[in-house]
Amino acid sequence: MCGIFGVFNHPEASNLVYLGLHGLQHRGQEGSGIVSSDGNSLYCEKGIGLVSEIFKDADFSRLKGHSAIGHNRYSTYGESVMINVQPIVVNYALGSMALAHNGNLVNAHFLRSELEAYGSIFQSTVDSEVIIHLIAISKGRTFLDRVIDSLKRVKGAYSLLILTEKELIGVRDSYGFRPLSLGEMDGSYILTSESSTFDLIGAKFIRDILPGEIVVISDRGVESYMPFTKTREAMCIFEHIYFARPDSYVFGESVNLVRRKMGYILAKESNVEADIVIPVPDSGVPAALGYSEGGGLPYDNGIIRSHYVGRTFIEPKQSIRHFGVRLKLNPVREVLKGKRVVVVDDSIVRGTTSRKIVSMIRESGAREVHMRIASPPVRFPCFYGIDTPTRKELIASKSSVEETRRHLTADTLEYISIEGMLKAVSSSPEKFCVACFNGEYPIPFTNEEIRQLGLFDDSSDPE
Amino acid sequence: MCGIFGVFNHPEASNLVYLGLHGLQHRGQEGSGIVSSDGNSLYCEKGIGLVSEIFKDADFSRLKGHSAIGHNRYSTYGESVMINVQPIVVNYALGSMALAHNGNLVNAHFLRSELEAYGSIFQSTVDSEVIIHLIAISKGRTFLDRVIDSLKRVKGAYSLLILTEKELIGVRDSYGFRPLSLGEMDGSYILTSESSTFDLIGAKFIRDILPGEIVVISDRGVESYMPFTKTREAMCIFEHIYFARPDSYVFGESVNLVRRKMGYILAKESNVEADIVIPVPDSGVPAALGYSEGGGLPYDNGIIRSHYVGRTFIEPKQSIRHFGVRLKLNPVREVLKGKRVVVVDDSIVRGTTSRKIVSMIRESGAREVHMRIASPPVRFPCFYGIDTPTRKELIASKSSVEETRRHLTADTLEYISIEGMLKAVSSSPEKFCVACFNGEYPIPFTNEEIRQLGLFDDSSDPE
Amino acid sequence: MCGIFGVFNHPEASNLVYLGLHGLQHRGQEGSGIVSSDGNSLYCEKGIGLVSEIFKDADFSRLKGHSAIGHNRYSTYGESVMINVQPIVVNYALGSMALAHNGNLVNAHFLRSELEAYGSIFQSTVDSEVIIHLIAISKGRTFLDRVIDSLKRVKGAYSLLILTEKELIGVRDSYGFRPLSLGEMDGSYILTSESSTFDLIGAKFIRDILPGEIVVISDRGVESYMPFTKTREAMCIFEHIYFARPDSYVFGESVNLVRRKMGYILAKESNVEADIVIPVPDSGVPAALGYSEGGGLPYDNGIIRSHYVGRTFIEPKQSIRHFGVRLKLNPVREVLKGKRVVVVDDSIVRGTTSRKIVSMIRESGAREVHMRIASPPVRFPCFYGIDTPTRKELIASKSSVEETRRHLTADTLEYISIEGMLKAVSSSPEKFCVACFNGEYPIPFTNEEIRQLGLFDDSSDPE
Amino acid sequence: MCGIFGVFNHPEASNLVYLGLHGLQHRGQEGSGIVSSDGNSLYCEKGIGLVSEIFKDADFSRLKGHSAIGHNRYSTYGESVMINVQPIVVNYALGSMALAHNGNLVNAHFLRSELEAYGSIFQSTVDSEVIIHLIAISKGRTFLDRVIDSLKRVKGAYSLLILTEKELIGVRDSYGFRPLSLGEMDGSYILTSESSTFDLIGAKFIRDILPGEIVVISDRGVESYMPFTKTREAMCIFEHIYFARPDSYVFGESVNLVRRKMGYILAKESNVEADIVIPVPDSGVPAALGYSEGGGLPYDNGIIRSHYVGRTFIEPKQSIRHFGVRLKLNPVREVLKGKRVVVVDDSIVRGTTSRKIVSMIRESGAREVHMRIASPPVRFPCFYGIDTPTRKELIASKSSVEETRRHLTADTLEYISIEGMLKAVSSSPEKFCVACFNGEYPIPFTNEEIRQLGLFDDSSDPE
Repeated sequence: MCGIFGVFNHPEASNLVYLGLHGLQHRGQEGSGIVSSDGNSLYCEKGIGLVSEIFKDADFSRLKGHSAIGHNRYSTYGESVMINVQPIVVNYALGSMALAHNGNLVNAHFLRSELEAYGSIFQSTVDSEVIIHLIAISKGRTFLDRVIDSLKRVKGAYSLLILTEKELIGVRDSYGFRPLSLGEMDGSYILTSESSTFDLIGAKFIRDILPGEIVVISDRGVESYMPFTKTREAMCIFEHIYFARPDSYVFGESVNLVRRKMGYILAKESNVEADIVIPVPDSGVPAALGYSEGGGLPYDNGIIRSHYVGRTFIEPKQSIRHFGVRLKLNPVREVLKGKRVVVVDDSIVRGTTSRKIVSMIRESGAREVHMRIASPPVRFPCFYGIDTPTRKELIASKSSVEETRRHLTADTLEYISIEGMLKAVSSSPEKFCVACFNGEYPIPFTNEEIRQLGLFDDSSDPE
Repeated sequence: MCGIFGVFNHPEASNLVYLGLHGLQHRGQEGSGIVSSDGNSLYCEKGIGLVSEIFKDADFSRLKGHSAIGHNRYSTYGESVMINVQPIVVNYALGSMALAHNGNLVNAHFLRSELEAYGSIFQSTVDSEVIIHLIAISKGRTFLDRVIDSLKRVKGAYSLLILTEKELIGVRDSYGFRPLSLGEMDGSYILTSESSTFDLIGAKFIRDILPGEIVVISDRGVESYMPFTKTREAMCIFEHIYFARPDSYVFGESVNLVRRKMGYILAKESNVEADIVIPVPDSGVPAALGYSEGGGLPYDNGIIRSHYVGRTFIEPKQSIRHFGVRLKLNPVREVLKGKRVVVVDDSIVRGTTSRKIVSMIRESGAREVHMRIASPPVRFPCFYGIDTPTRKELIASKSSVEETRRHLTADTLEYISIEGMLKAVSSSPEKFCVACFNGEYPIPFTNEEIRQLGLFDDSSDPE
Repeated sequence: MCGIFGVFNHPEASNLVYLGLHGLQHRGQEGSGIVSSDGNSLYCEKGIGLVSEIFKDADFSRLKGHSAIGHNRYSTYGESVMINVQPIVVNYALGSMALAHNGNLVNAHFLRSELEAYGSIFQSTVDSEVIIHLIAISKGRTFLDRVIDSLKRVKGAYSLLILTEKELIGVRDSYGFRPLSLGEMDGSYILTSESSTFDLIGAKFIRDILPGEIVVISDRGVESYMPFTKTREAMCIFEHIYFARPDSYVFGESVNLVRRKMGYILAKESNVEADIVIPVPDSGVPAALGYSEGGGLPYDNGIIRSHYVGRTFIEPKQSIRHFGVRLKLNPVREVLKGKRVVVVDDSIVRGTTSRKIVSMIRESGAREVHMRIASPPVRFPCFYGIDTPTRKELIASKSSVEETRRHLTADTLEYISIEGMLKAVSSSPEKFCVACFNGEYPIPFTNEEIRQLGLFDDSSDPE
Repeated sequence: MCGIFGVFNHPEASNLVYLGLHGLQHRGQEGSGIVSSDGNSLYCEKGIGLVSEIFKDADFSRLKGHSAIGHNRYSTYGESVMINVQPIVVNYALGSMALAHNGNLVNAHFLRSELEAYGSIFQSTVDSEVIIHLIAISKGRTFLDRVIDSLKRVKGAYSLLILTEKELIGVRDSYGFRPLSLGEMDGSYILTSESSTFDLIGAKFIRDILPGEIVVISDRGVESYMPFTKTREAMCIFEHIYFARPDSYVFGESVNLVRRKMGYILAKESNVEADIVIPVPDSGVPAALGYSEGGGLPYDNGIIRSHYVGRTFIEPKQSIRHFGVRLKLNPVREVLKGKRVVVVDDSIVRGTTSRKIVSMIRESGAREVHMRIASPPVRFPCFYGIDTPTRKELIASKSSVEETRRHLTADTLEYISIEGMLKAVSSSPEKFCVACFNGEYPIPFTNEEIRQLGLFDDSSDPE
């Protein structure tokens, strides 16, 4: 997952992008960059780490100009090194351009080999760089022609921001996997991954960019193009489950409300007799509140989350093991002692943390621990921008629900059903990508891609 | 406020202190240090910033030995510079010693002048250094004699850890202002400001150090001394209100439970007709849950707290003002829209943040905003270790509750009463210091100290 | 000017390159890089500053493999930023390659525009990158074919090292502007800009790479190719005058001896009655010794050079001006007082330092100051790798010798003649480039290049 | 050895001290500090490394005020850590003071034990700190009284600068071991270890501070005091031999001239038939020029010294050994080949470098190598501020001249005689300390000190 944020025509453009990236920090903590334009040149600052660290000594006066784009990286493809931090900025025949990409391309490997055979030299290992090279070699007359040329050749998930000396371009692939919204503030335009950043800077939400839409923002205003062949829609349901902030509206509805409804439906599907409902903080809070309502059980705060566990934590020596979860989450004994506890989380991926949480609650004196998960079992890897582990590491891929329960040492374990989950959103169910739950990938793969992506390499029996 | 943590006789002593300081990070974020002893020498590492930042590249093998103490600094007295980071380590006639101090001395200025007149040279501007110099000049035969000599001369609040080559000493002043607890793990002893750190490292709580007690931990085990004249007890009620973590037991009872009871009593004292109760996260959560129960109103999560706002945030330019609160706290519009909202916080000091919160909730569409505070109005500065502003800056010192309500633009504003607050704890009310609410300071001041401490300097009309 | 150094087949390859770059530090102090190969991959470390600073904390174990090349950058073309530090390393269709370039291309601008028009994306602003792109787009069958293809299109001065996974290639342009020598040590091959680095690492000089020669060093040994059309030779006489170290052999002869002869001839051409000859240290020392011999005057050490003036010196405030020269060079009053002094330097470029030196000598009590320069007046810019200022800044371009003398405030000023200078070398005079003295550039320019290079832009009257 | 520099009453005081420390860099490269005074407070900046590195990003506006002192540290006593970098700055009963010390105290250990017994707490391990504590505990009425009190108790070598809010004090011990000179510039006063720094900043030399003199510089001007019991003078002859810059006047005469005379006398004492005289650069240059004159042999430049070998050089791996000398000094083969060479150096301490130099010259083709040393054999350690090794490591302490010659593999080896050396200076011979050559220490030692200083601990048979 990544976060992207762009501003066109504001005297504090790069400062606003900084604030926007800060508000999108949850979408990527590995590295960030900002590129600005003053109408003649592009200016770039990048770094590894959190937005606040990278830019703490930054001199924003170096990021000149009234337009800017930024990117928070959450590694999906390509190693974690400085060269891979976006936006990618290049000089090419027509001038300069910078690109920020949220999503993942499935045919990047193939396109890169082809481009290199014709003499292109790549700077990074990120898939997004093929888009840049395809623009550079395009014979398109205008920049927009070149962008369309390029995007017609790539396959996969992409919400994009492209900044040139004079224009800010926003794109959402025809499936609409990743969100991208347009806002306005005092005559300036904003493009962002999540609407909560509009609130942050005091901008007004205008509308979501449509699946398959390109918007070109320039001195002529906002122009919209729909140059791609229409496909089905495939919005990522995980944006609602986990990625987006609860104070955002994503794909047209409130993330908090969707999560709460998921908790409510989960309670209706699989309630259990218990004394209290507690969330795994902070991501499980809305679902736990919904579960409390749906299940008619009192909500309490049984686990404290530390504010101080960041990226830089050093793991202590082997001789003092297993501190990871305790440093981040600590039980409140008084709340849990002697109780039958329902603990609600948004999802289970590997199961490692969940197991520690169950054991922590039980050690604090809980009589029973019932785990409830506000998403279905994650059984398939994502190829559209979420950095899921390989199938081998997904606990639901290799274990039944009962096996997982035993592994977690929970008294009961229940997941929401795929149907239940899709009832929580207002859009029609077929507009969402739920491939990580049922393996039905919206984009057909070629055999080559299946091999490249290692799609089924950890399963002798492809499903 | 500060946090202190010590370990005696554990092969991973400095690593455990690191974990302990991490778990006490909320008690001080300005700087931290660890000093260890290998029986012959002391080893020291210090830094400015968060524990995880300071020790991220630390080589713990340099902090040799089986005993160690650590300190998180929250500046109370003395400027914020490296030299003031504790533990203070010195060489003196008998060898080496290191000191970590939680609290504040009221006669430090006087003692320093006196010591300097006799030729002592101070390294720092922290009040705690006078204790060290008094030990160095003492003619006491043993180290313990010298410590007692020294402490008989200082006046104020102190929970102390002192490490020498061979011993770990823990002290709590006779008033018992600040907490200090003793634990045990595999034959090692632990001293800590808060019991939640025992859970963190898997240690067992033994007992609180008593007001006026000195414990000497050495190869002979734990020896207890009560060398000071007995005084009244004066435990700091603000530990329960705000400072301690909810998962700690402080002064013999669960912080979470006390906070919850405060919220419950607050609801009973000043309920209002409303649709939902929301906390100011995270410190207002237990009180809001208690209020929800006491007031019979549904609890919800109306404000999201960002995990990424740390110390290093750069304030954007003047032209983009007022982002401070928004970056840290963001409203969930869907929860608040059209509702009559009770918002619960633990305390109000200056009122600046509360005002922004009220306005944020109202802008999100709330019909009414009722602010409820789970502590009485803070009207007097603290001289025992809490870094309160001067009286001029305390909003409750210069404004009535009604004036404050108007300033915050809330529909109603109510505080818990002092009596109500003290009903939430089990110990008898007279054992607590509530000077910040009623101005009745437990330690009598000399005229000199009144002048030095600027006790009444911002009021022409001392109360 | 730049320095390049390569090693093939030595277990300490990158360590030897580090030592080699250290010994070539005088050829470039702006930044350095090392790229190594372990037969499968290339590994790269670069930095801004001196070799010893860049690699002081370097982990040479990361520069794996038995072959490596390195480069010291002295900016000639392209801004001073990290991205411009060489070797340039890229991945392209056939694998990886790294390039280190000493010299300057005159048609780089034209080639870059052409390559960009076909879609190439450049990473840096250094001229050398065009060579890389020309290799990447070449349809040549072997890597050597591609290199030859590429070099047939570039025009200018180049001594090159190219490292691939399996080969080390050395090239010298057909004019032979810049030196490049081949050495051997325990079965390993070394390529270096200057032979003094062979002494440093204990290697044996084999021979100079010939003008127009390509050597390919691989497991098959050293193979030599002469694929380019023969041109005249044009070895840079400034290597002897200033750039190379006196302990190097360049273009087949001892630099120290050439400089000494230049001083001797200078004395024969323009002796003056005086008491002592002193050098401007350290570059003027050999010529001053030669002058002392040629003029029959005693040599002395009248100016001390500080060892501690490096790149990082901060200029003090405006109010304390003119310290630059004094911090680097200080007069020895006792030596100069009351004397008629001949001061010998290797060359005058802008004249700023010379003027300060004359005034410093005179203020120390010298009765007369006679400046003698062991090279002719520098009147034309260099386009082959020496970073001379524009014509406007060359004092000899805008002033006669007499005007220069008056500017320097010297009693007399004499330069060696072009003919005298060329008598100091053994090779025949027409094999040297002396364009900076007489404006006769060995490579014909196109009109386009004349405009791009700003060749005559500061003179209304091209000569 | 250390360097000290002070300025009183100049608007650019700290900037001038920075320049002064730069010009005294040769006297200490381990660390430096500057302390300034604005009449009310002292301001301090310190660091490890070279002056130019430490202050490269320094903000001189933080070093406020019109007076300042600085210190370059060359470790003599105390470990190499930040805390030991001078000036030492403290607050004490009367205000603030800063101390910079060149020299070494012989009774520091004894005084420190005594001071600690009375309760003093030391911050560092440098001997100079006892002076500070003795000032702090003195009952003297004025600051000057306290300084005199303190210095009457210390024994050893000291040239001192002491800065308070209002005064700059300069002191030279009664033996006059280390230099200290007073200068003047536009109404400001300068105190410096070496007069060459007056030239550097454009100041005028007034006079040397006398042995046993204290000067107090304040708004009242310069006041002089001679409060100590008169002793013999014992100026360090090594200042002339090696430490001071040749462009300085030290103890009343030109260092360059003294060195040149030493070379001349050396040639007269021990000339040899040879073809050329070469120096070990740069320290051997003046003596080699003197030898050339005295011996009637031509002077040449047979060894090149690299400008780029600084503190930060990383030693390459064991497998590529013995590069140390080669990286710093490289022979000029053309000069040495087939010659009988006299090589002149200022002194031999351990003999390691000399051995490498002899072998390097011989490998370059010299027929004979005659080593000549412009100081007598160093046979005893210095206790007055020069960081000589223990007796065991001094080659002349354990080997005869003939044994040393064999070790160096020189054809002949001759040192100047003690009498010859003392003929090179104008002051009478008995005014110099030559203890390192003959073991006659000017200050009598107590038995305690003999043990503490390990004076004879490496010889069973004290001489």
